[in-house]
Amino acid sequence: MAHVPLDRTAAAMERAGIDALLVGPGADLQYLTGYHALPLERLTLLVARADGAHHLVVPRLEVARAEDAGLPDNLRLAVHDETDDPYALVAGLLDGAGDRLAIGDRLWGMFVLGLQQALPGASWRLASEVTAQLRMRKTAAEVDALRRAGRAIDRVHEACPEILRPGRSEAECAREIADRIVAEGHDDVRFVIVASGPNGASPHHESGDRILAEGDPVVVDIGGSVDGYCSDCTRNYLVGETGEPEGYREAHRVLEDAQRVATEAVRPGVAVGEIDRVARAHLADAGYGDYFIHRTGHGIGLEEHEEPYLVEGRESALEPGMAFSIEPGIYIPDRFGMRIEDIVVVTDDGAEVLNRLDRAPRRTQPAVAARAH
Amino acid sequence: MAHVPLDRTAAAMERAGIDALLVGPGADLQYLTGYHALPLERLTLLVARADGAHHLVVPRLEVARAEDAGLPDNLRLAVHDETDDPYALVAGLLDGAGDRLAIGDRLWGMFVLGLQQALPGASWRLASEVTAQLRMRKTAAEVDALRRAGRAIDRVHEACPEILRPGRSEAECAREIADRIVAEGHDDVRFVIVASGPNGASPHHESGDRILAEGDPVVVDIGGSVDGYCSDCTRNYLVGETGEPEGYREAHRVLEDAQRVATEAVRPGVAVGEIDRVARAHLADAGYGDYFIHRTGHGIGLEEHEEPYLVEGRESALEPGMAFSIEPGIYIPDRFGMRIEDIVVVTDDGAEVLNRLDRAPRRTQPAVAARAH
Repeated sequence: MAHVPLDRTAAAMERAGIDALLVGPGADLQYLTGYHALPLERLTLLVARADGAHHLVVPRLEVARAEDAGLPDNLRLAVHDETDDPYALVAGLLDGAGDRLAIGDRLWGMFVLGLQQALPGASWRLASEVTAQLRMRKTAAEVDALRRAGRAIDRVHEACPEILRPGRSEAECAREIADRIVAEGHDDVRFVIVASGPNGASPHHESGDRILAEGDPVVVDIGGSVDGYCSDCTRNYLVGETGEPEGYREAHRVLEDAQRVATEAVRPGVAVGEIDRVARAHLADAGYGDYFIHRTGHGIGLEEHEEPYLVEGRESALEPGMAFSIEPGIYIPDRFGMRIEDIVVVTDDGAEVLNRLDRAPRRTQPAVAARAH
Repeated sequence: MAHVPLDRTAAAMERAGIDALLVGPGADLQYLTGYHALPLERLTLLVARADGAHHLVVPRLEVARAEDAGLPDNLRLAVHDETDDPYALVAGLLDGAGDRLAIGDRLWGMFVLGLQQALPGASWRLASEVTAQLRMRKTAAEVDALRRAGRAIDRVHEACPEILRPGRSEAECAREIADRIVAEGHDDVRFVIVASGPNGASPHHESGDRILAEGDPVVVDIGGSVDGYCSDCTRNYLVGETGEPEGYREAHRVLEDAQRVATEAVRPGVAVGEIDRVARAHLADAGYGDYFIHRTGHGIGLEEHEEPYLVEGRESALEPGMAFSIEPGIYIPDRFGMRIEDIVVVTDDGAEVLNRLDRAPRRTQPAVAARAH
């Protein structure tokens, strides 16, 4: 849907001093051409030249699939067979283009070395110098897709108190949440983190065999995509009707405040790194500084993680249409963890928060009673 | 499970004239260390030196996840924080190692350029020069996992006549097949292709809105993984009780023979490309040469596609333990397509075929009768 005309990209390349973009399967290709290519060992590559001569290099057996995608009119196919040298084909398409080349940030190493060998005189930069600038500023249609994804993931969190019952394993809950992500309107599941008890202290914990017990805190960080655009939302739960680790409520109140003041700091012109600084300072002032071990957020769109990254020290300014997570966390090793995450979009004078669910930890339902037998 | 000691890898590096491997998230990393890392914009990188000093570079927030994976004893963590330069960290770990470096074949371009900039004196090759040689020859435990995956996908194909009923869409059938892939014992779904009628002529068709009609041929190419090892099997169906395109049965009989003679040609010492030549010659002799638009097969293991690739001209010899697909196809544009695919493992004197289901096209069940109302 976000399918920016390649002409606009060519103009951006000219400004950046890049003669051609070489972009493989992934979000950049989808954004620039509308083509959702399979990530395969056979080379699929957009060769976009600043002078406007654009080709999509495709393996013979994917021609029909590429044509089905409805490619832009100014993009021509360049087809290679199984025994052809696809790098020689690319070199031919770049003839006369200039040698300041930019490769897709996620292009596989095997393709990067193949291109470097076939184009020994070229200099190499990253396509994100052009594409991140375009993709960072979401159009109204893109924001609308993010909004719908946000509402869908909120509905999944609403269902979590029923799912996270004592006696169930993290993995069992994660499977049910994954099904729910699709049932609530996502096209796919991007990730599900269910981290219970001390596992919550690992921000990217892989949901496992641990059984949820009464009084366990649980971090639930989940996302899917709607029309290609991602949701990503984290809330914290307390299992069953009673019990919680000592100090948990107090830490959570501090975290809620940190997440709120960071969100309130969002407006056009503020430095990207400032949002990180605000959240970090709030946690540090309350004595939790050492327990916040990651940046405050990341951009979101066609990818779960994209520019802008909310890392301290980033001087570039927020602009209307930028969409990112605000997700401070507190991770106390061997005890517990917590994270609160919403997606926000920069508006003309502040931020629109796409996730609406209350941020306090919610108690889950009791164990399902054993059936009479 | 396949977790080869890094020491054996170091010896293979020495033989290949490689001083260090730099491998990111993916199958190589899993094979070498047992760690299933998330593919993220923060650098996770195995730095394996031929002299035996191995490190795993990990972002701070993934330390707990990496430790949970049970890393080999001779692998130490090198941790970086959000504002650290991870490439400087890698350069430090390579100090004194030598400058003949090999990067993971699927390492992202952003990391490749970052490493090249931090290590300007180095020469660059691909890690597969070492890892493909190790991974290609499956151990008994790996073959056993492939065997279990093969049996599981056979059970899914057994259920397809019930699923592919007239009146249902490709996408609807694909969703049900995906659920069945997990229900029959796979840990995940890797891909589902349901290509009906003329869509079958596109080997990588994306299952869509097309409604299956009585007499349509359907190509079903599906796979998942069991304990990390992949299944991949294609069979052809004819929708409903009657009807088929003119010439379909005859073409399918030729294809069955081509797939069989190619399988019969498998034994240690035969050139990899010979299997492709046998299948291709059989199809060409029967007049279908122009309609077979891809190679005959690909290796399989932790990845759906890996070495060895069965492409004409490949001179290297088959060896016991190699596992790959044999999947000739016939694709007639705007009419229909068909492909028959089994996974085979090279034995001491021939091949073990891991997929057992009959290869003839099978008729599917009639439409479900409308409910009385």
